[in-house]
Amino acid sequence: MKSTIWFLPIFMSLLHLMTPVHTQASRDSSVNKKIPEALNSRKPKKLSCTSVKASGSWASCPAGKAVTGCSCGYGCGSWDVQNGITCHCQCAGMDWTAARCCQLV
Amino acid sequence: MKSTIWFLPIFMSLLHLMTPVHTQASRDSSVNKKIPEALNSRKPKKLSCTSVKASGSWASCPAGKAVTGCSCGYGCGSWDVQNGITCHCQCAGMDWTAARCCQLV
Amino acid sequence: MKSTIWFLPIFMSLLHLMTPVHTQASRDSSVNKKIPEALNSRKPKKLSCTSVKASGSWASCPAGKAVTGCSCGYGCGSWDVQNGITCHCQCAGMDWTAARCCQLV
Repeated sequence: MKSTIWFLPIFMSLLHLMTPVHTQASRDSSVNKKIPEALNSRKPKKLSCTSVKASGSWASCPAGKAVTGCSCGYGCGSWDVQNGITCHCQCAGMDWTAARCCQLV
Repeated sequence: MKSTIWFLPIFMSLLHLMTPVHTQASRDSSVNKKIPEALNSRKPKKLSCTSVKASGSWASCPAGKAVTGCSCGYGCGSWDVQNGITCHCQCAGMDWTAARCCQLV
Repeated sequence: MKSTIWFLPIFMSLLHLMTPVHTQASRDSSVNKKIPEALNSRKPKKLSCTSVKASGSWASCPAGKAVTGCSCGYGCGSWDVQNGITCHCQCAGMDWTAARCCQLV
């Protein structure tokens, strides 16, 4: 009995010494590997553009898209962007206006 | 006294056995959760465009912005981009030129 | 001998108690620091645009780029985008067409 009681703490202490120690270094290495993996697995953002054409002198992009350029009827190349999302063709008597609308997808 | 000295290592060993063990798996699960959380908490990049208008045949975007299109006076639709940041309207006697300047924000 | 055997488990238990404990909190703090570091070390995406000019009424952007605007010969400002990547200048007898082609880099 006495020897058993002696043996127990010695055995347990040895058991603890044998437990694998995950050091800060091994943990860091795991994190350092996982972060670029997670970043690279993300779908990269891409620029996507569509046109919106309307009759008259104005054409607006939907909310969330940016106007990158405008096209006008009658060969007109004079335009400006109003309120950030609306193409305005400046020549008189425009039959149509088109906005080029882009966003990241 | 003797029993106290015996008791001490046994008690300590048991205490150690009761310590929660954070395995590699539980650590990984924590990291796997934190990375998407961090990525999703980032403000997503957005396309933002503004116009720069100048008198004459040239208009330049500020550094860091890209020219996505140009607009010209007198209804002119013939333009080219010079030095990557400058709109040049090609028709003779241009009164104004505007550059559409975009960047990610 | 007897005292040595007693001393061993006590010493080992004390040794264990002195081992630095990496708590969940300290691990989290390491991960929380590493993720923004990794994100900030990434080159930020930038909008980059080039022009593609061709003779005739059509000019196409290379695959992977988006058309943000078009320019036309003879001062023509009427254009549309076909198949997502091709500028089409609509005025009769076009001598040249240019596409403004953008992508994230």
